Amino acid sequence: MSGSVGELPPGLTASEQITREELQLATRNHGMPLEALRYPVTPVGLHYLLIHYDIPAVEEASWRLRVDGAVRHPLTLTLDDLRARPVVTRPVTMECAGNGRARLAPRAISQPWLLEAVGTAEWSGTPLWPLLEEAGIADAAVELVFAGLDRGVEGGVEQRYARSLPLTEARREEVLLAWGVNGQPLPPQHGFPLRLLVPGWYGMTSVKWLARITAVTDPFDGYQQVKAYRYRHDPDEPGEPVSRIVPRSLLVPPGIPDFLTRQRMLEPGPCLLEGRAWSGWGPIVAVEVSVDGGRTFQAAEVADPPAPYAWQAWSFRWDSQTPGDYELCCRATDATGRKQPTEPQWNLGGYADNDLHRVKVTVAPS
Amino acid sequence: MSGSVGELPPGLTASEQITREELQLATRNHGMPLEALRYPVTPVGLHYLLIHYDIPAVEEASWRLRVDGAVRHPLTLTLDDLRARPVVTRPVTMECAGNGRARLAPRAISQPWLLEAVGTAEWSGTPLWPLLEEAGIADAAVELVFAGLDRGVEGGVEQRYARSLPLTEARREEVLLAWGVNGQPLPPQHGFPLRLLVPGWYGMTSVKWLARITAVTDPFDGYQQVKAYRYRHDPDEPGEPVSRIVPRSLLVPPGIPDFLTRQRMLEPGPCLLEGRAWSGWGPIVAVEVSVDGGRTFQAAEVADPPAPYAWQAWSFRWDSQTPGDYELCCRATDATGRKQPTEPQWNLGGYADNDLHRVKVTVAPS
Repeated sequence: MSGSVGELPPGLTASEQITREELQLATRNHGMPLEALRYPVTPVGLHYLLIHYDIPAVEEASWRLRVDGAVRHPLTLTLDDLRARPVVTRPVTMECAGNGRARLAPRAISQPWLLEAVGTAEWSGTPLWPLLEEAGIADAAVELVFAGLDRGVEGGVEQRYARSLPLTEARREEVLLAWGVNGQPLPPQHGFPLRLLVPGWYGMTSVKWLARITAVTDPFDGYQQVKAYRYRHDPDEPGEPVSRIVPRSLLVPPGIPDFLTRQRMLEPGPCLLEGRAWSGWGPIVAVEVSVDGGRTFQAAEVADPPAPYAWQAWSFRWDSQTPGDYELCCRATDATGRKQPTEPQWNLGGYADNDLHRVKVTVAPS
Repeated sequence: MSGSVGELPPGLTASEQITREELQLATRNHGMPLEALRYPVTPVGLHYLLIHYDIPAVEEASWRLRVDGAVRHPLTLTLDDLRARPVVTRPVTMECAGNGRARLAPRAISQPWLLEAVGTAEWSGTPLWPLLEEAGIADAAVELVFAGLDRGVEGGVEQRYARSLPLTEARREEVLLAWGVNGQPLPPQHGFPLRLLVPGWYGMTSVKWLARITAVTDPFDGYQQVKAYRYRHDPDEPGEPVSRIVPRSLLVPPGIPDFLTRQRMLEPGPCLLEGRAWSGWGPIVAVEVSVDGGRTFQAAEVADPPAPYAWQAWSFRWDSQTPGDYELCCRATDATGRKQPTEPQWNLGGYADNDLHRVKVTVAPS
């Protein structure tokens, strides 16, 4: 690993610059360009994508979903079996737990997201829990383990990607087994033919290329559960698990960009600032906007959520009459009182840093 | 700009590491994960995307295509007018002229592609030239200028993205005005509602969000024509224009990856290496594969092109019996005799470097 200094634990760098390993990840994973915040439903191909290993090649004809473990009647299901079940379509905002990581210092060497690891799609599928009831899940079960078909090595451990969910979460009616996105079959990169969808939780939970659901009577200790996706400040502590999405608001960058710096140029005059805000803990109840880099804030208008766990539109009328340089930022508060902080929220893995989106704008006549 | 040293011209860096400006571009532009080479037609959402400014918001109802300049009958067309014309669907491989840039040293500070800026889509649209004939293009016209709706600042110049094409190229029957991709309307990021498609040329030519075609009697001197996309070795020389795609072959990385390093792990035994190869100058006639880092090569099997300007599948049976570390690479030769070089092809802008794809593989029992 290049770029690390002095006392830092392994896997961290204090360098402003990005390593070759990080670039390899950044060129294969996809962010959502922030102007796509304008779409209430993100078009397929603009939604963020984080793929740990390779996209597996899966044939629908031979694919099966296995439901097993602590159940009385293990199930083996085809996609047609699943499609014959009750169908639900719901818009859900999904965000990568590492969104914001590359803005932290020092930072974990991993996928170097700035702020674009988000998207909202209309997912179609069938509720998860009735399937487990049909399988006769045992009273002794405590979690479900969801295993994908994607295989690789991470932290020295060869693995298929797998994550678990406590039964209290798995029982929620909005948790789906999804085979469709935006009215189409899942494309390969979103988990064809089937993925889990856990609204409100960071994306690592919504296992793609799902092949097996196992009810377990002891908490799952797989790599993605106990090594990755933990809030830690010291490499030796077990850490708290990453779960629900903390509040965030983002801004459609106004005006026009410079190709390289992404600095924005805007003509003087009235300008409607718009964006989206979301939280996995509850609806957003307030968005505030600052045009002076966070010194002062004013309330934006916030639309009702189109559905639980789908981002909410917000807008703010800014009259940018005076030429000069501005730093716009926005912060959201949800119904539980959780509010975006003004300072970075540092942890070793670079998870869930939801400090403010800052957009530099030069107001000048063109 | 960070990372530059001593005698380098501005806009170049010799650093192995990636600047913040480059990361901003890498997180918003999309590469094609190389395992997607397995698809003859790249699924929407996996095709590469290079967007200079912002994706513009375009309403089909108010959008028009204007054909003007040195024509006897200027035209103003709706998308329905265009859709009423003869329709052609053709698979075309598109590659960014900057593909490979981040492997060069020193390199231009721009979108830091490694090797993934490619894709093949089935584009649907209507041939360009008959439209110009109907508009009564003047004998004095020498080029067509294609202007998009995307606006920004680049190299200090505020501009709408625009590129020209000599009439000899514009007359080719395979040049399309495309409104569809893979059987769907263009998504916003691919140029909704209409884009130019110039098979065989690098992607900068296939102007997205097309709004105006202007016949001109002098060569176009816009930024994207005379400043960007030129082969230069000195910042002061005018340089040769970037045009057709030089041959390249890529390999589906075999085995399984390490999440961070992307190093590949493979079990000993027979392994079918597969990939794609293409050139904008003519069909690929040979692909050779090396399993010893380029010291020795053997011929791969190469499939016929599914259509002109669409990539060709190749395959090679490798019996990786002996555990150890290998470096796989492949090189393509086209019908004009153009062949991938073993060494980087350096120029200031980092264009069209088509030296070999190298994939490190550790063969070991799992």
